[in-house]
Amino acid sequence: MKWSKTIIPTLRDNPQEAEIDSHKLMLRAGLIRKLGGGLYTFLPLGLRALRKVENIIREEMDRAGALEVLMPALQPREIWDTSERYETMQNVLYHVFDRQKREMLLGPTHEEVITDLVAREISSYRQMPKTFYQIQTKFRDEIRPRFGLMRAKEFIMKDAYSFDTGWDEADASYQAMYDAYTRIFQRCGLRTKTVEADTGAIGGKWSHEFMVMADSGEDGIVECEACSYAANLEKAERALPVTKVFPDNDKLPEEISTPGMRTIDEVSGFLKSEPMRLIKTLIYLINGNPTAILVAGDREINEHKIARLLETSNVMLADDKTIEKATGAPVGFAGPVGLNIPVYADIGLRGYSGAITGANKKDTHLLNVDLERDAKIQSYMDLCTVKEGDKCPRCQASLKEKRGIEVGHVFKLGTKYSEKFSAIYLDEKGEKKPVVMGCYGIGVTRTLQSVIEQSHDAKGIIWPVSVAPYSVVIVVPNTGHNDSVKAAETLMASLEQKKIDVLLDDRDERPGVKFNDADLLGFPIRVVISERSLAKNSIEIKLRSAEKAEIIPIDLGESRILELCKT
Amino acid sequence: MKWSKTIIPTLRDNPQEAEIDSHKLMLRAGLIRKLGGGLYTFLPLGLRALRKVENIIREEMDRAGALEVLMPALQPREIWDTSERYETMQNVLYHVFDRQKREMLLGPTHEEVITDLVAREISSYRQMPKTFYQIQTKFRDEIRPRFGLMRAKEFIMKDAYSFDTGWDEADASYQAMYDAYTRIFQRCGLRTKTVEADTGAIGGKWSHEFMVMADSGEDGIVECEACSYAANLEKAERALPVTKVFPDNDKLPEEISTPGMRTIDEVSGFLKSEPMRLIKTLIYLINGNPTAILVAGDREINEHKIARLLETSNVMLADDKTIEKATGAPVGFAGPVGLNIPVYADIGLRGYSGAITGANKKDTHLLNVDLERDAKIQSYMDLCTVKEGDKCPRCQASLKEKRGIEVGHVFKLGTKYSEKFSAIYLDEKGEKKPVVMGCYGIGVTRTLQSVIEQSHDAKGIIWPVSVAPYSVVIVVPNTGHNDSVKAAETLMASLEQKKIDVLLDDRDERPGVKFNDADLLGFPIRVVISERSLAKNSIEIKLRSAEKAEIIPIDLGESRILELCKT
Repeated sequence: MKWSKTIIPTLRDNPQEAEIDSHKLMLRAGLIRKLGGGLYTFLPLGLRALRKVENIIREEMDRAGALEVLMPALQPREIWDTSERYETMQNVLYHVFDRQKREMLLGPTHEEVITDLVAREISSYRQMPKTFYQIQTKFRDEIRPRFGLMRAKEFIMKDAYSFDTGWDEADASYQAMYDAYTRIFQRCGLRTKTVEADTGAIGGKWSHEFMVMADSGEDGIVECEACSYAANLEKAERALPVTKVFPDNDKLPEEISTPGMRTIDEVSGFLKSEPMRLIKTLIYLINGNPTAILVAGDREINEHKIARLLETSNVMLADDKTIEKATGAPVGFAGPVGLNIPVYADIGLRGYSGAITGANKKDTHLLNVDLERDAKIQSYMDLCTVKEGDKCPRCQASLKEKRGIEVGHVFKLGTKYSEKFSAIYLDEKGEKKPVVMGCYGIGVTRTLQSVIEQSHDAKGIIWPVSVAPYSVVIVVPNTGHNDSVKAAETLMASLEQKKIDVLLDDRDERPGVKFNDADLLGFPIRVVISERSLAKNSIEIKLRSAEKAEIIPIDLGESRILELCKT
Repeated sequence: MKWSKTIIPTLRDNPQEAEIDSHKLMLRAGLIRKLGGGLYTFLPLGLRALRKVENIIREEMDRAGALEVLMPALQPREIWDTSERYETMQNVLYHVFDRQKREMLLGPTHEEVITDLVAREISSYRQMPKTFYQIQTKFRDEIRPRFGLMRAKEFIMKDAYSFDTGWDEADASYQAMYDAYTRIFQRCGLRTKTVEADTGAIGGKWSHEFMVMADSGEDGIVECEACSYAANLEKAERALPVTKVFPDNDKLPEEISTPGMRTIDEVSGFLKSEPMRLIKTLIYLINGNPTAILVAGDREINEHKIARLLETSNVMLADDKTIEKATGAPVGFAGPVGLNIPVYADIGLRGYSGAITGANKKDTHLLNVDLERDAKIQSYMDLCTVKEGDKCPRCQASLKEKRGIEVGHVFKLGTKYSEKFSAIYLDEKGEKKPVVMGCYGIGVTRTLQSVIEQSHDAKGIIWPVSVAPYSVVIVVPNTGHNDSVKAAETLMASLEQKKIDVLLDDRDERPGVKFNDADLLGFPIRVVISERSLAKNSIEIKLRSAEKAEIIPIDLGESRILELCKT
């Protein structure tokens, strides 16, 4: 392909709309353009790279025995009522009304569609195992679309769904997808980490996320510095901490005036007490019912854990009125003693005594609280977010905090959907059983941008050959020199015949512009053919990732390029 | 691929939901399944065939120098206001509201998005010509989705857009797409006819449709039995008919009582007059203004022609109240004499005298009307739909009526969109000019189904090799016979290595079921490997399109299959 025949609108400056490097580079290199918030058009080079990611995914899915299908984006509302996710996924669903005012939804995911299909088409153990996948456009009404393709309203996902006769069989299907994902990200040139994750609105028993480690990542991750434990902060656990014993832990509760002191910092500063001695008491509405959640003053409550442990998706902080009604005091003075609503405490609070809490009374806290003695705790559970320095739940070594970009997520779903959609099969004995499911997603467009996020320098993108829009760019510094142009065209034609993607920069531009654009675009292999090099019967070959170029005799050039393309 | 590893849910009976053969066969062969009205899931074999159609399109687009891009399905409303199509395409637009209640649309086509992009990225004559294309999912709120993929709410389209510096250059781009389309449909094994067509809501100066001829087609077409003239009925013209001279054509108009006679049939029957002697007068609202349209009593008004000639998209039959107000009479008695609204007459009515019309008075018609003398006609235009037996506008031979399925449509758009989106470039002299556009669509999913509509028999589909889900099916009648199974697996592995798509029917089913399914699925080449054939050291090869099988020595089998796959 000649540069003049395609369109590569490179930008010299960083566009204002972009915050992270990969987003800036995708715009600067002319790979994508913004149509509206969270909506992007892929220009020819961006699409070429995207297709390469898609093809890697397709090859590995096929190799794992998964069957490609294609489901509609528009989905009837009814199947979302069946799954009971019309409510729980409300915050990302786009609603579409047709001319008869019938409601449809734009699919953010396809568990409903595929389970409904399987319920109709699979009825016998003989038809399983089966895994279906699609590479398809998804829609989510994101609160805050940002970072380009990282969090968009419309994006491409590979979603897969496995159907098995039993739990062990489902585990094998899960493992096959897990292994395929590992290969896919490797082939895309990505360094990923697999972490335990929250199952969220998808549901199911267990899940893993594939994370691209990057400081710009939206997900917090902890990993153990000693063992292989790693988990998303939404899900991560910690070893049970040693119970803190505070001074005066045998005294009875005693009120103390804390005028206008509402936050942990204010109260601990005022009372000259370490924050961890305080018991943070937040009132939530859980399924609409006021409920108190307690954690130590130096910790954060993890709402994902509340939702998972209490088996609901309906968890929200209570409004001021509810708090005042439940505690009898203005916001900021809640505490567990004497509360008449269910109280759940973090496991780290077990045995807390000599602690400080709100007194459920304006401008007042309580000293010397013994949680067991003075409050009625429904149960102690893991309710707070792990942080750096906590101990590994497996080996007690220290946990470290990192940032990551979620590119893949695999779920053991079990029978959540198959029961709702009556996806029932007859086993060998003729007995009816629900199909056991797994589901598996890869953010395809996000994966593409993650490659750039992880592989770039000050000059631009550094593509791996596997997903580069073109593996080779041939630069002719002086397009007025006919022999250079002819040699370049001959080399391009010959490489193209061998299925190598080549871009020939035939623009009438200064050499500096061409070299800068080649670096910005990040083609893995740059070939320079000039009057000077031809005089020595040679061409210059430089890897984007290397410092220096090599000078190769022209008749060995092609075989050297082919060799480099394989690595 | 082994049959048992994929999913091919064939149906013995015709599903009730399907009316035309291709729709029935797509369901029966397990290629697609319905999710909701106009919404279909592609099962593995349907998707394989679809991908082959897509790849043929992609290869021919690339060969024609078009550049592949990918635009969002979600589009901001604003660009549809800019193009002024928010109103004119209202009847197919799906509206989507996000969490900020901002309106977006699901793209039924992408002229707005691409022209907006080009306005930003192309500014010089040096950057043209350029043609962009995408293979992408479109959405249309169809009044009556039907015939499976033929008229769906969500479907895949290849849309392309050309950008040129001038009209002659745009003609060359148009011709390149026209030629590519011809090759695409040929490669898909389709017999198509190219017809002149209406430009409708897309607009522009000129357009051609590529029609798959089929009795089930939704489009009426006329073609000349002598010359190459062919056109969609929406657009087709006829040679000017010889003016009819009726008896009593020199008398003055005279009222006649026609109690309750409102239709042409009623009046012509009652007055014992041939229908063509009557002047059919219909009152339309054109841009909201009552307007009378006249055609001969034996002809139909063509609203597409009204819209085109009066340069509006706002043409609708008037309601009863408007008719009564405009004519002073109940519905059924309108006529041109004495009307106080604009009156347009079909060219066939020029010189009409001795004619019969409504009298704009209840239960009354007028005899002896001379249109020139008695009525005020704004202008005579081509306003009626051509019908079988009309004369060719080019050569005066007879026109014949046919049915067709529109699979492709190419438009010379001109500057309609580039002016609205300020897609302006600087020419060689530094002068600003609007870019000249063309646009080009192929209904990809419809094309796939059209192949079946045109190529099937009572037993099932007859795929051409180019788009068959698998080129070869290997049937082992008795899967208990190990040597047959082994020979089949060896043959499959060897053919797959040579990139031939092979399906091995390894099911434990009766031979009759397997043969029937092979015919239903329509694989071009069927290979049977049985105990009996192996005893003779041979295999049986049968083309789906042939009556008889051939017996081939086993060691020549593969080369024979490879040969057949090439044809």
